[in-house]
Amino acid sequence: MSALLSGVPAADGFRMPGEFEPHSGCWIAWPERPDNWRLGAKPAQAAYTEVARAIATSEPVTMAVSDAQFEHARTVLPAEVRLVEISTDDAWIRDMGPTFVVDERGRRRGIDWRFNAWGGLEGGLYFPWDRDDRVAAKVCEIEGADRYRAPIVLEGGSIHVDGEGTLIATEECLLNHNRNPELTREQIEEALRDHLGVEKIVWLGRGVFNDETDGHVDNLACFAAPGKVLLTWSDDASDPQHEISADAADRLEAAADAKGRPLEVVRLPSPGPIEISAEEAAGVDAVAGTLPRRAGDRLAASYANFFLGTKAIVFPLVDERHDDEAAEILRATFPGREVIGVPAREILLGGGNIHCITQQVPAVG
Amino acid sequence: MSALLSGVPAADGFRMPGEFEPHSGCWIAWPERPDNWRLGAKPAQAAYTEVARAIATSEPVTMAVSDAQFEHARTVLPAEVRLVEISTDDAWIRDMGPTFVVDERGRRRGIDWRFNAWGGLEGGLYFPWDRDDRVAAKVCEIEGADRYRAPIVLEGGSIHVDGEGTLIATEECLLNHNRNPELTREQIEEALRDHLGVEKIVWLGRGVFNDETDGHVDNLACFAAPGKVLLTWSDDASDPQHEISADAADRLEAAADAKGRPLEVVRLPSPGPIEISAEEAAGVDAVAGTLPRRAGDRLAASYANFFLGTKAIVFPLVDERHDDEAAEILRATFPGREVIGVPAREILLGGGNIHCITQQVPAVG
Repeated sequence: MSALLSGVPAADGFRMPGEFEPHSGCWIAWPERPDNWRLGAKPAQAAYTEVARAIATSEPVTMAVSDAQFEHARTVLPAEVRLVEISTDDAWIRDMGPTFVVDERGRRRGIDWRFNAWGGLEGGLYFPWDRDDRVAAKVCEIEGADRYRAPIVLEGGSIHVDGEGTLIATEECLLNHNRNPELTREQIEEALRDHLGVEKIVWLGRGVFNDETDGHVDNLACFAAPGKVLLTWSDDASDPQHEISADAADRLEAAADAKGRPLEVVRLPSPGPIEISAEEAAGVDAVAGTLPRRAGDRLAASYANFFLGTKAIVFPLVDERHDDEAAEILRATFPGREVIGVPAREILLGGGNIHCITQQVPAVG
Repeated sequence: MSALLSGVPAADGFRMPGEFEPHSGCWIAWPERPDNWRLGAKPAQAAYTEVARAIATSEPVTMAVSDAQFEHARTVLPAEVRLVEISTDDAWIRDMGPTFVVDERGRRRGIDWRFNAWGGLEGGLYFPWDRDDRVAAKVCEIEGADRYRAPIVLEGGSIHVDGEGTLIATEECLLNHNRNPELTREQIEEALRDHLGVEKIVWLGRGVFNDETDGHVDNLACFAAPGKVLLTWSDDASDPQHEISADAADRLEAAADAKGRPLEVVRLPSPGPIEISAEEAAGVDAVAGTLPRRAGDRLAASYANFFLGTKAIVFPLVDERHDDEAAEILRATFPGREVIGVPAREILLGGGNIHCITQQVPAVG
């Protein structure tokens, strides 16, 4: 049961909470398509299963899965993960799922953004994407959350908020002409304010190097708490990531948040560079209209792309040279939470990471 | 979240409540297949919508619907009906859905019977039926009910219980060799006792004349309360239904229930005979393996095929000559409930009626 609402959340008194605020649970969608996931998605399914298992140790997890994969998913997922049939085009519920907003009366509603597979016919990653675009409504029905159908194209991974009026995003993504070409920067800012209950938008420039999402902020940086941002960082001046991260740090350190506070920037090491191997590329079906996976292409690996749970941090293990350092920084940043690393190369090969495959449901009441 | 259980419900202290006991809600599945429902299922969808609306006036309704029909169903169903994606082969959740059992500790579990589309390769109504057979598990996940996978083929419409140890069923259906040919009558009785927590099985002979389910009891008779059975009845000795109903009445009136009580039989008029019109038959796609709908075929209409809600009776309007009389009997039988008639010819054309398209979730705790 989910009524379709008119109006906008902010005008109704709703705001998007920070991911670090308490959750009532988390959604994930099961990977399946063999033109994105190698070897019939079996290695990716194993990685998703471990992410679900890690999150489920401390908060309820619901897995959205197609009818075709329902029985298989049930046999491999832990019993405590709730399984719900939802057809998708791929497995990135951060981006296709609803963004939940809450109000002070303890109500929770969902925002159902328009979705165009990260760029529609201009650089989108596959065609069609209509099943993905129906996911948010279905999640809202099961969560019993009334729903706003937002009039703009937006993916959940392209924004982060502090829950206190501040939003970070990249110009590369939100101002990309393949999302909302008819809107100016000011109109997009207005839509963000109207829907997420934010006042201040801190614009970063580009996202992680070679990120096929057109630079989602969630692969580059995130709020650890109000006033504190984690940022992926490379000291190597010959790495194109260096300049991107330096620019982001400059902008963050020059900014004030909605409350007028400066932003502390905590630097996470940049993994890699990590490339797709020939064997990995050979495991993926070639399909016209789907972004190919080619040997030697650089993967947009980042430790910033982690799940920030109520009691646990679930972060990607992607590079033995840096995993421990990343874990240490996350432990220091989130002293009250268990920090759990999950091998995530198979998720990374599909074009994203642990934050991209999760969507939290904020706690209410 | 729904754990797969070993063992059997009765041994774990569970029983199937009578349908007249309080519900926490009701499930329905959306009709869609054009080889069973005329005119692309649009008239049937309208009828299902009215059934959902009538039930939703007094208890929560969840509609299971395919991805392809999700948006359409959302536009036509009342907002208070919860919509959940579940792929099906057709729209008879009474038969493919779980049978819920409860215990005295306030727990609720689901029985996921094997399903073979009312007869499998020997007289089953369509092929394949694998999506239907996955429905019960999916409903249990969403209801948060642990699940028994029963080792026998059984449809929910082929049994009725009084919640106090008594079950009625027809020999035509449960002993049909197209269901569980390897089992004797005694073994089937044992399976019913083990799964439903019943002690006494009252066998009726045949179901309603020309019922394509092989004579489901729910189209012939049902418990209105412990000790009281409603039975479809024809006084017309030239109608083959007369002999069937007379035999059922004889058996019921000769029986004692599990508590040793006699059974009072309340007679409902038999509608019709009602036949498929040429226009109606012409609206259905012909598909090999699906039971054809032919002009002149007699429909197995019955007023016994109603939904027995916590506060409402939702019964089929199928014959102007008898609808009012049926309503009057139902009002007299269920004085505490609102009796709501819904035009149901379009459901009847698909092979069943209102009871067949619903599945209650008993209240607990």
